[in-house]
Amino acid sequence: MRNIKLIVAYDGTDFHGFQSQPNLRTVQSELQQAIERLTGESIQITGSGRTDAGVHAWGQVVNFHTSSRIPIDKWLIAMNSVLPQDLVIRGAEEASRDFHARFDATAKTYLYQIDPGLYPDVFRRRHVWHVPYRLEIDSMRKAAVWFTGEHDFTSFCNASTPVEDKVRQIHEIRVEEFGNVLKIWVHGNGFLWNMVRILVGTLVDVGRGRISSDEIPAILAAKDRTRAGVTAPARGLTLFEVLYPKNEL
Amino acid sequence: MRNIKLIVAYDGTDFHGFQSQPNLRTVQSELQQAIERLTGESIQITGSGRTDAGVHAWGQVVNFHTSSRIPIDKWLIAMNSVLPQDLVIRGAEEASRDFHARFDATAKTYLYQIDPGLYPDVFRRRHVWHVPYRLEIDSMRKAAVWFTGEHDFTSFCNASTPVEDKVRQIHEIRVEEFGNVLKIWVHGNGFLWNMVRILVGTLVDVGRGRISSDEIPAILAAKDRTRAGVTAPARGLTLFEVLYPKNEL
Repeated sequence: MRNIKLIVAYDGTDFHGFQSQPNLRTVQSELQQAIERLTGESIQITGSGRTDAGVHAWGQVVNFHTSSRIPIDKWLIAMNSVLPQDLVIRGAEEASRDFHARFDATAKTYLYQIDPGLYPDVFRRRHVWHVPYRLEIDSMRKAAVWFTGEHDFTSFCNASTPVEDKVRQIHEIRVEEFGNVLKIWVHGNGFLWNMVRILVGTLVDVGRGRISSDEIPAILAAKDRTRAGVTAPARGLTLFEVLYPKNEL
Repeated sequence: MRNIKLIVAYDGTDFHGFQSQPNLRTVQSELQQAIERLTGESIQITGSGRTDAGVHAWGQVVNFHTSSRIPIDKWLIAMNSVLPQDLVIRGAEEASRDFHARFDATAKTYLYQIDPGLYPDVFRRRHVWHVPYRLEIDSMRKAAVWFTGEHDFTSFCNASTPVEDKVRQIHEIRVEEFGNVLKIWVHGNGFLWNMVRILVGTLVDVGRGRISSDEIPAILAAKDRTRAGVTAPARGLTLFEVLYPKNEL
């Protein structure tokens, strides 16, 4: 059996998230249907992780096992010819036999985009959070520094998060002004449910002056979701890149 | 009566064009409904010109007469609070009593965006034409020069165009490589039905080597739509700006 790795981009607006659910349009089920159309095989794919309803991806990674003999350099065009327009394959590679898109991922980069304009940018509205307030970028950068390193992120994940161990490591948070958009890059070794969206919501509260950047250590220490800021909306969030050990790149 | 001028942006994807049509969602009818919600007045607005189904705008201009006393600096926020998300007011001004968005327009700039990537950019797909071929930009620029100046554009408009006089003046066509997008700016004093889309379709045929740039004068002279290139799809076209004499700015 071959093991094929795909790099997948999607506009999450019209999907009920990544993971298959009965009778709902999801990224996983659209990908599986496309593979079935090409190969005749009914296959289960593995993603690097779920993304919630409305969240986008530029570099989601999936893998699946197949007996199909379609040459690897034909997969990209073939898949894109049967996929809907809001789901695009950006790369296809032959992976090693035991490559696993979820277990082998060592880090991920998320991009969160904020539109701080007086009126929403009509062409970007599906992919940004419109925040029509003056944001103190320097304060947001100061707050971001408190999040880097290894922390228990209990205060910064959905209160219903099922996992026990809520310690994660954030390698870097970068706050960039890019044209008329504020881009927040979050790079870390793993992420809890809603974690990026709550980090960003808290940074925006800092930027608006509703939370001081100096309060972040106490909010982290409290291990209490109610102490952090709002959950930023899904529409602004994009899974940008998933990293694997070198031999899997 | 006041005369109010609005600068309007829209994502044309889900509109049946600008002009009101019974039982169809159009830009004009959505704007008129929003104005009626704010003022209680049933008003007819005037646009600088129609845009076809699927065509976008960044700087469409409309005007309308109203007895409403809403202060001019409140119109932008008020309109945007009742408009759907794919239609946004970018500016509102008190216009002179006899300002007319269509008759007073002296020039327009259209932007046509082409995505020449191997696979379509999922985040831009609603606003670009995906042309996955190598395009000879220099040839396209050479061809564009033939279009500038005053010409009879019979070969470059929809064969059903109702107007008699098909002479128009193109001030400039600029072909720009901008990141991963090819931007074609067309600036002129007036445009026939589908004119920009046929100019762009022809430029793409030149870029692909299917038409030589030297053939453009003969195609113009033929006054025959069948001699020009394809009509580029609506999705890539944006009415970028409408110009008025200085005293109306």
